[in-house]
Amino acid sequence: MQRLSRVITLTTDFKTGSPYVAAMKGVILSINPAATIVDITHDIPPQNVRQGALALSQTVEWFPPDTIHIGVVDPGVGSDRRIIYAQIHGQHFVVPDNGLVSRLALTHRPSTIRHVRRPELWLPEVSNTFHGRDIMAPVAARLSLGLSPEELGPPLEHLVHLAWTEVRRMPGRIEGTVQSIDSFGNLITNITRDQLADVPDREQVRIECDEHETQGIFKTYSDQPDMTFMAVVGSSNLLELAIVGESAAGMLGIPVGSKVVVSW
Amino acid sequence: MQRLSRVITLTTDFKTGSPYVAAMKGVILSINPAATIVDITHDIPPQNVRQGALALSQTVEWFPPDTIHIGVVDPGVGSDRRIIYAQIHGQHFVVPDNGLVSRLALTHRPSTIRHVRRPELWLPEVSNTFHGRDIMAPVAARLSLGLSPEELGPPLEHLVHLAWTEVRRMPGRIEGTVQSIDSFGNLITNITRDQLADVPDREQVRIECDEHETQGIFKTYSDQPDMTFMAVVGSSNLLELAIVGESAAGMLGIPVGSKVVVSW
Amino acid sequence: MQRLSRVITLTTDFKTGSPYVAAMKGVILSINPAATIVDITHDIPPQNVRQGALALSQTVEWFPPDTIHIGVVDPGVGSDRRIIYAQIHGQHFVVPDNGLVSRLALTHRPSTIRHVRRPELWLPEVSNTFHGRDIMAPVAARLSLGLSPEELGPPLEHLVHLAWTEVRRMPGRIEGTVQSIDSFGNLITNITRDQLADVPDREQVRIECDEHETQGIFKTYSDQPDMTFMAVVGSSNLLELAIVGESAAGMLGIPVGSKVVVSW
Repeated sequence: MQRLSRVITLTTDFKTGSPYVAAMKGVILSINPAATIVDITHDIPPQNVRQGALALSQTVEWFPPDTIHIGVVDPGVGSDRRIIYAQIHGQHFVVPDNGLVSRLALTHRPSTIRHVRRPELWLPEVSNTFHGRDIMAPVAARLSLGLSPEELGPPLEHLVHLAWTEVRRMPGRIEGTVQSIDSFGNLITNITRDQLADVPDREQVRIECDEHETQGIFKTYSDQPDMTFMAVVGSSNLLELAIVGESAAGMLGIPVGSKVVVSW
Repeated sequence: MQRLSRVITLTTDFKTGSPYVAAMKGVILSINPAATIVDITHDIPPQNVRQGALALSQTVEWFPPDTIHIGVVDPGVGSDRRIIYAQIHGQHFVVPDNGLVSRLALTHRPSTIRHVRRPELWLPEVSNTFHGRDIMAPVAARLSLGLSPEELGPPLEHLVHLAWTEVRRMPGRIEGTVQSIDSFGNLITNITRDQLADVPDREQVRIECDEHETQGIFKTYSDQPDMTFMAVVGSSNLLELAIVGESAAGMLGIPVGSKVVVSW
Repeated sequence: MQRLSRVITLTTDFKTGSPYVAAMKGVILSINPAATIVDITHDIPPQNVRQGALALSQTVEWFPPDTIHIGVVDPGVGSDRRIIYAQIHGQHFVVPDNGLVSRLALTHRPSTIRHVRRPELWLPEVSNTFHGRDIMAPVAARLSLGLSPEELGPPLEHLVHLAWTEVRRMPGRIEGTVQSIDSFGNLITNITRDQLADVPDREQVRIECDEHETQGIFKTYSDQPDMTFMAVVGSSNLLELAIVGESAAGMLGIPVGSKVVVSW
């Protein structure tokens, strides 16, 4: 029997400090007292499945093999949306089937998907509004104890996908999007380090976003003086736009979804 | 000798991110390196004992039997208010005696209460302003190592109770109160699922709160379209008022303490 | 071989809820699955090394001997600023060499300082913008597994120091500074309990700060009625100015850096 990691992560839109998160942890520890629970984030904007999907896609690769990840950004809770188990790139996910792992699945094809459907593995009473606590937490805890994913329910062929804006590459030009904003106010785009391999001269390249413009892609923030609007390839291997020592999002008012053009 | 759980939870008004919380964790781990520490919440409004009592009453039931819960919402720290140990419904509490477990004690009579009074179980130096770190954390850590609650100090007959607004049931009418607001902005009332058993027709019932009105009690949020003001019985078995996809508290400005009337 | 604690703490300016913190935890658990990770705080104001240094200096003494502390307030990431290991007062630090442990080092001389310089102990790929994840987390995890600090790199004689405002003591007068503000809005000064030993009569002493004045140093907040501006020696053995039941910082608008005068 395959034994998964005893590390279980939580990603929700409950907000840090929500007792709902604590209830999930209590349920997990009631089933597996030896579980190591790690918060990825609880500050996904309410019901914003896309931002949840991005947070998971940028974080889970740093966890031990066979870590179990619970994601609860679940506007459809209590409806007929499915809950699924998915194995993706050596990590295990227990999530509503609403696209929450669809960003990860863009780059790594799920090797197994199962419909979580056997109530005897859940809490005895299941509420209509909190499946994170009543279904996902107990299922993840049982997986961490050695339950085989096959026991969770029947296999599925597909999971729900969200449309993700693709990066467009043209001669002398790459067009992408600001896809998230980090806690420093840096604008994280969807343009990858690999896609930037087309750029002939990183010092001369021009980057435009929402009427703001900068020249050059630098190695790190401290390559430029404070208050400079600048571009770097950040720690997730994505092009980022930053203002040194300040919040670019706050100072420039550039929202998620804004177009980013790299040209030379 | 009874061995309690090695799970210790923390509920405070220190705010998430406060180094004061970390100091308590350091003290616990110094005494019991094998303790599993879980944050219930640190975002109780400053010195709001009632909201602390509600957070505990809605969360602790999800934890393993014999979990030890520390609560530090403690405006009277350093005064002659007592610190107590209480065993309630198979869970153990180390709290100031100011009503912090009085909401729980409404539904589950404490089986033991003790006055925490033996300084040799505390830190060697006790500050006047932080008994959570200097008294409650070491006492909880020692309990998790197997110390018998009898050792903490003499038994007490009573703990301090706060007045809690009761739900009034009349023919064709139930009157309750908004008692807390969750992180989604849902208004959580004090009307329980059991009390709603009087309602003859859930689809026809009228719910009023602070000049706003809705009809029907639904199973889950997704039963209604976005932006609808609606009522559900939530995951704590309490009547909730919500705006689908939005914050009801934010959009309607309804504060804690507002009257809620269910009529038919 | 000396075996350090398996407790590893994190102090950053990433903000609570940042997936960057989770990535560091994933890296640590990938190397040492038995590590116990404790958040000190992630809410240091962005790039504010001084506030990070204060948070560490007020918290680490409560942790078990040989705890490993990672600090990531690192505006110079990717530049030629060094990363260091320092042993201070029986605790171990892995930090950028920018002053982050210099407050602690004021009162406790580091017994060992090493330049963290052996890439084979880091992640295989090191980004330019996130050394907390790629260098400090793996180094700390290896220390917690028993790696000797000598293995990290060559010894250093000195670490970078920040200038810290000193308390001035004159006949009948002590002058200090507000050095931080806690989550209750209490103003924490740099005047220690020991320095206040000069005061002949604590009830008569006058404390002034930024045009506000109060008389007497009390034992605890509840010694004075609500809304009173008052002084206590707080739980870190530092003089604090508070408004009972309210936020002194919020109500009086007194910022960090303000002068505090105790006179008699």
